[in-house]
Amino acid sequence: MQLLKDRILAEGRVMPGSILNVGSFLNQQVDIGLYNEIGREFYRRFSGVPVDRILTIEASGIGIACITAQYFAVPAVFARKFRAKNIGNNLYSAEVTSYTHGIDYTITVPRDYLPGGKSILLIDDFLANGCALEGLVMLCESAGASIAGAGVVIEKGFQSGGRHLREKGIQLESLAIIEEMSPETGIVFRD
Amino acid sequence: MQLLKDRILAEGRVMPGSILNVGSFLNQQVDIGLYNEIGREFYRRFSGVPVDRILTIEASGIGIACITAQYFAVPAVFARKFRAKNIGNNLYSAEVTSYTHGIDYTITVPRDYLPGGKSILLIDDFLANGCALEGLVMLCESAGASIAGAGVVIEKGFQSGGRHLREKGIQLESLAIIEEMSPETGIVFRD
Repeated sequence: MQLLKDRILAEGRVMPGSILNVGSFLNQQVDIGLYNEIGREFYRRFSGVPVDRILTIEASGIGIACITAQYFAVPAVFARKFRAKNIGNNLYSAEVTSYTHGIDYTITVPRDYLPGGKSILLIDDFLANGCALEGLVMLCESAGASIAGAGVVIEKGFQSGGRHLREKGIQLESLAIIEEMSPETGIVFRD
Repeated sequence: MQLLKDRILAEGRVMPGSILNVGSFLNQQVDIGLYNEIGREFYRRFSGVPVDRILTIEASGIGIACITAQYFAVPAVFARKFRAKNIGNNLYSAEVTSYTHGIDYTITVPRDYLPGGKSILLIDDFLANGCALEGLVMLCESAGASIAGAGVVIEKGFQSGGRHLREKGIQLESLAIIEEMSPETGIVFRD
């Protein structure tokens, strides 16, 4: 998605530790026009797939999921993150390890909001090691729901999350895939 | 907003401790059609006020803020919550006490995303004791930005947050104000 790549090149700041700061337009300050183009593009890429519901994870996925849900005219649901492992039994849960933040956490979603037999589109802002999306996949498996696909705005192609999801046979659509980046040499996108 | 009140009466679950669970349509599973009506209604109520930017707080405010931002065609910004007090110096920050959750936390927003002299509309899903919104007001004051107003979806009118904000002269627009509620007697709205 060229509009997105241009914006990443113009405003993204590559920080040490493979961190890409795109807070000025994507995940803290939101350019709502760009969000709409992102939602429209996900709709185009998954137009041949039945989508009953969109599932994301708090916090920065929520806005993108809501805008995308407008195009599909389906509910958006977001999983919550907890540090505690002691959760209620009317929830589906999955354990997630964040390599970026060096912590383990539990993600949960009420069973009522993820009915079995539905086709679920996963949405998130970033894909790196893929732990968050793998957690969402586990929630869907627990629910007996199928995965329509996964849409991410920015994939770090030099980390393994994307490969793992594609190897599982999941249709992964990343609107920009970064092949390599560093504070010195900048950002190179995969074709 | 009658559509919202009807939905609260149909699906809201009053829990002990003055908790109202509206997760099935508002703040975990999102009815995107209702979100659009909420955004449209905020736009109507603040139509006479200059709005340069929408400010909310993670997590459940984000989706509502993004959808509302579409109507105003302005950026949405969300403040982040931290338990730590050791934050960078390129951020505005405010200390917030959550009576609901019994914890103190710090909310922050990068200075670049909250420029001085702008007119900021605050948006959130719930207003009870008003600590989160007061924190957002403090961020705006630190930035030298003015408050266009505050829009909340559900105000717990039996708690003091709404009164405090109105006494400060802030235009507060709550789409549903709950006068009283209990698991036994249900929900009564303020006229």
